[in-house]
This record gives sequence, C-alpha cells and structure tokens, in this order.
Amino acid sequence: MNYPNGKRRFTQNPTPQKKTKPDFSNRGMSLEEDINLTNEYYLEAGIAVVHKKPTPVQIVNVDYPKRSAAVIKEAYFKQASTTDFNGVYRGKYIDFEAKETKNKTSFPLSNVHQHQVDHMKAVVSHGGISFLIVKFSPLEEVYLLPSPMLFTYWDDQWNGGRKSIPYSYIMEKGTRIPFHYQARIDYAKTLDKLYF
Amino acid sequence: MNYPNGKRRFTQNPTPQKKTKPDFSNRGMSLEEDINLTNEYYLEAGIAVVHKKPTPVQIVNVDYPKRSAAVIKEAYFKQASTTDFNGVYRGKYIDFEAKETKNKTSFPLSNVHQHQVDHMKAVVSHGGISFLIVKFSPLEEVYLLPSPMLFTYWDDQWNGGRKSIPYSYIMEKGTRIPFHYQARIDYAKTLDKLYF
Repeated sequence: MNYPNGKRRFTQNPTPQKKTKPDFSNRGMSLEEDINLTNEYYLEAGIAVVHKKPTPVQIVNVDYPKRSAAVIKEAYFKQASTTDFNGVYRGKYIDFEAKETKNKTSFPLSNVHQHQVDHMKAVVSHGGISFLIVKFSPLEEVYLLPSPMLFTYWDDQWNGGRKSIPYSYIMEKGTRIPFHYQARIDYAKTLDKLYF
Repeated sequence: MNYPNGKRRFTQNPTPQKKTKPDFSNRGMSLEEDINLTNEYYLEAGIAVVHKKPTPVQIVNVDYPKRSAAVIKEAYFKQASTTDFNGVYRGKYIDFEAKETKNKTSFPLSNVHQHQVDHMKAVVSHGGISFLIVKFSPLEEVYLLPSPMLFTYWDDQWNGGRKSIPYSYIMEKGTRIPFHYQARIDYAKTLDKLYF
C-alpha cells in the first residue's frame, strides 16, 4: 500500500495484511492497526505526530552472537504504566487509549486499569487532551469518549455503581468517529469539534 | 529511597542501586536513570507527566506455560522511530532525547539518528517543545539544547560541515541544567526560562 506521494507505509505489525484490491470496509483490521495507519497518514500529511508506545518488556537474558544482532532469549511482558498513544496535535498534548469490545450494550470497565485512569487524570490536570477510543466490534462503531466521562463511571463503580458504561451513554455523550479510507479512524477531525 | 510523602519510588531499572546515605553527587547514575527519577518526582509533585518510552522490541517467539506468565523466548531490539521521552508540561507537549558523551570538547552528531531528527522537526512544526538533554560525563555538566540548534549542525554536516557540535556552542547557546537532589535533572525549571 503506497501513499500518493510514493512513500511506502511502514507498520509495527510484523505481518502486514496484503490486499490486492482496496478494501473500504473496516472488517478484519483491529482497532489498533487502524489507528496506527491513521497515525502514519497524519504524520505524512502533516496533520499530527502521534505514535503508539512500544509494548513494555522486562528483558532478563540477552545473547550476543558474533557478527549478528543481539537476541533476547528471555523476557516478560510488563503492564504498561500509561496509555498506548500520545503525541502532539495543533500544539496540544494528546493522549489516549484504544479499546475494542465485543459487547453491544455496554463498555465493560474491566477493559481499563487503575494506573491508566490515574495517568489520564494526571494528563487532564496538566492541561493535556485525554480520551478513549472505543470500538463496539459487533456494531462496527467507533466513538471518542473524553476521559472525564470515563472518570465518573470509574469512580462510581467503587461506590456501588455499575461496572460498565452503557452503549446508550457513549452514543449520546461520546462522538462517533466515522471510517475513512486514508484516516481510517479520523479522530483528529473529532478533536477539532470537541477541543478547538 | 523514599519521597517525603512516604511513597516508595519505583524504577524501570531491574536492580536499583541501594544507598545507605543520601548521595548528592551525580556520579554512578546514568543520565537516563537520573531523568527517570526526575520524572517520577515531577509526577508525584504534580509538576509534569513525562515518561520514557519502552525499548522497542520485535517479538518472534512466545512460550505460554500453564499456570505461569508468558515467556518471550526470541526477540530482537528494534530501532526507535521517535525520541525517548515525551509528555505534558504546563499544558504543552514536550518531547526530548537524552544523550551522554565521554567527549569533553564536542557532542558528536553520531549520537543522534536521522529518523530522530525527522521526528524532532515534525514535533517543532506542530508546536511541540522539542529539545536534547546532553551530558558531558567527564565534566559532570548537563545542558538543555533546543532542537532547532541541533538542526543547524545536523543539516550542515551533509554540506561539508563538522560532524559534531562544539562544547563551547552548547555552553553558550544551550542552558545548563543544575543538579538537584529531588529533581536530579531539573529540566522543567529550564523550560520555564526558555518557553514560558
């Protein structure tokens, strides 16, 4: 897949899906892959600089063979202490987490972790733009939900509140992100409406 | 090592250096460790939210033993496509790379990579604050150098220019970051002077 300017796209995915025909549907691509493609497009088009953070790994044992690259022989996945994506858009710090659910009627709060919520609250308190991108996979619908809306549900769950955010709430209070071919999850346009 | 508020410090370093007495000197700590400690202090004190990005790793083979954590059995180091640190400070996006040199008279440009410079230029063009933290280890001196000063030397090297930035230039045009006990590399104070 090439951009009109002739530059090749790169991807963190080790086995990129090759397609013979352009596929305008969102099916088969994970939310994360779609956002990575969107970020690559944003970077090339000069719209925003946003990257996914690498998966944090605790490296225990590394082998250094002669004349070839170092091989990590033993390592473990660590829990991320922040959200997955951050960067700069129109001069502002933006920071978000992307979550997919197979649920049709609500977004289970178990998809998010306490330390991520702590991080989001810190970002908001420092004037950054913090949000969730939520995909309801069975519905093929993607929403942008500003973090403070998550905080309300998050904090309420410890006071006898529900353990999920209703789909109806996200549909009403969140903003639907339409699917585009180039900017597959065109969240920047949604941010324009909400924050600029 | 505890903060005055009683919270334990955490570190990405698997073998934290234990010290019986507070050590006010900077010796023995890497620049990266010092910046990580500074960022932890900034987070606890509500000054800024800045994290080091995890080392990017290409995971090839993972073992999933029963009843225990997944073990990464084969993986390789990948080159980072961005800088090491980013976050939000006083509402602004900040993004930087930290580099140590054993050189006393200049900072060799070979410490920086083209894709990092590309990233820094993109950050600047989107209104983010981009800079280098340079430590001259033999001198125990740390400087903040706004990225545009690097760009001049970086671009000139391909036009017959020198392959390093003179120490005298960094001393004059950069800003010295003094060493403090809590904010060991107190770059936020330096940013106050330069950007706010």
